[in-house]
Amino acid sequence: MNKKLSEAVALFEEVIMYGTERIIRSFEHQIFEEYSSEQLQMLQIISKSEHISPGKLASLQGVHKSAISNRYKKLETKGLVTTVDSDEDLRGKLIALTDKGHDVVSMFNEVIYEHVEKIVLDDFQETEIDEFLRIFRKLSTILKTEGDRK
Amino acid sequence: MNKKLSEAVALFEEVIMYGTERIIRSFEHQIFEEYSSEQLQMLQIISKSEHISPGKLASLQGVHKSAISNRYKKLETKGLVTTVDSDEDLRGKLIALTDKGHDVVSMFNEVIYEHVEKIVLDDFQETEIDEFLRIFRKLSTILKTEGDRK
Repeated sequence: MNKKLSEAVALFEEVIMYGTERIIRSFEHQIFEEYSSEQLQMLQIISKSEHISPGKLASLQGVHKSAISNRYKKLETKGLVTTVDSDEDLRGKLIALTDKGHDVVSMFNEVIYEHVEKIVLDDFQETEIDEFLRIFRKLSTILKTEGDRK
Repeated sequence: MNKKLSEAVALFEEVIMYGTERIIRSFEHQIFEEYSSEQLQMLQIISKSEHISPGKLASLQGVHKSAISNRYKKLETKGLVTTVDSDEDLRGKLIALTDKGHDVVSMFNEVIYEHVEKIVLDDFQETEIDEFLRIFRKLSTILKTEGDRK
């Protein structure tokens, strides 16, 4: 079992690594010239919640708050993000996407989706996709729930 | 099928995002105070090949070569990476891990592994791990092969 888990971890890392390379390299797409992959990742994370605190964003991207602040400024200059008042957190503002920000995320998701489709339709059966979904729904639920416990 | 694929992509992204947060936050581990997650990711990518060109590294991390050069300098100051002469590529040097670099990667992998083990042993059956391995071996092979085609 230990050996299988080690292999699973290594494979997951490889898929992230080679997947990133493939999507970025083979797509000579405009959005990759305009935005760095870190900026795109940040936009995508914001889009998954309606708005998000800088601290939570730093935690999800695995970087310090100072890095988030720099990235925020760059994205704000490009008109992609803005701040909104927080109902719950009186201390601070929350980060949200602008309409333009939502458009960039949609475009990025389409680029990723087209790539995944190319890979998957050639080499995977629908039953394998179902199995993938089953495993990842479970994984995602576990990780989200654990993340909420402070 | 389209809907399933979209869900698969979204779930994969969520697992990366919440997995990163969980591993970094819940482990008050020394290596996360000493090294940023980007530095750890770079060390890990180098460790997957014996040595690697700065260009390939930039491509795998999805950043510009200038970012790699900055990260390299920081890691070199910490004694974790070094350069070696390339047999194939006369133009440039390749980046390799030092012994200390290998130690940091091993420690990082252990931290990740312990976390995955905790999640998986409670909630997943061995047959699910087997299915995960089967899907990810295939995905990794496809992505690697495509990555080699220039």
